[in-house]
Amino acid sequence: MTTASVTSRDLPHPGRDEIRIAGVLHALADPLRLRIVQQLAADGGELPCSHFDVPVTKSTSTHHFRVLRENGVIRQVYRGTAKMNGLRRDDLDDLFPGLLDCLLAAAARQAARLAVG
Amino acid sequence: MTTASVTSRDLPHPGRDEIRIAGVLHALADPLRLRIVQQLAADGGELPCSHFDVPVTKSTSTHHFRVLRENGVIRQVYRGTAKMNGLRRDDLDDLFPGLLDCLLAAAARQAARLAVG
Repeated sequence: MTTASVTSRDLPHPGRDEIRIAGVLHALADPLRLRIVQQLAADGGELPCSHFDVPVTKSTSTHHFRVLRENGVIRQVYRGTAKMNGLRRDDLDDLFPGLLDCLLAAAARQAARLAVG
Repeated sequence: MTTASVTSRDLPHPGRDEIRIAGVLHALADPLRLRIVQQLAADGGELPCSHFDVPVTKSTSTHHFRVLRENGVIRQVYRGTAKMNGLRRDDLDDLFPGLLDCLLAAAARQAARLAVG
């Protein structure tokens, strides 16, 4: 079941056993969301929403983060006034071993290929 | 550029260099399409649309196959009156080494996990 909100500031997240591959793929099937995940993976920790330089409106950006959260790809926590985002690597690696790294490698490979020439 | 249709029966397919990771993930972010791809991968060859026992209408089924084709995941060719479907494993493995197998393994792992108890 979805983790119940302890306070009104807690954002709902799917439990590990609620994460589905179709949902993870849907969340990552967007170039902007994939880029956010690449940056989170590279950082290895938590990053505030403001860290990401995205060429879209705030509301669109919020939507993208929500899609990632609702599909179990990221964890969002309020720390003070900032909403911190972290990759749910532990859950994803446990459910789908190697998948995250494979997807990130594929995205990096494509970026390199398209950047040439 | 998209391979031009030689005859009116040829279906348009993206060229290898037009295939994008976001499109592939979108195509696979559907349980039914993922199942189709799992069956094609297991078979290793071409299968007609009629081979797939899917719990949806013909038009919905056609839509799913088209999404897979338009995103470069499958190749569809008319052989007589049957539309044959084959996985574009060569193209996908070349563009994104290991991704297809990783995705298939993740899907199989989830199916096993959900089937228990």
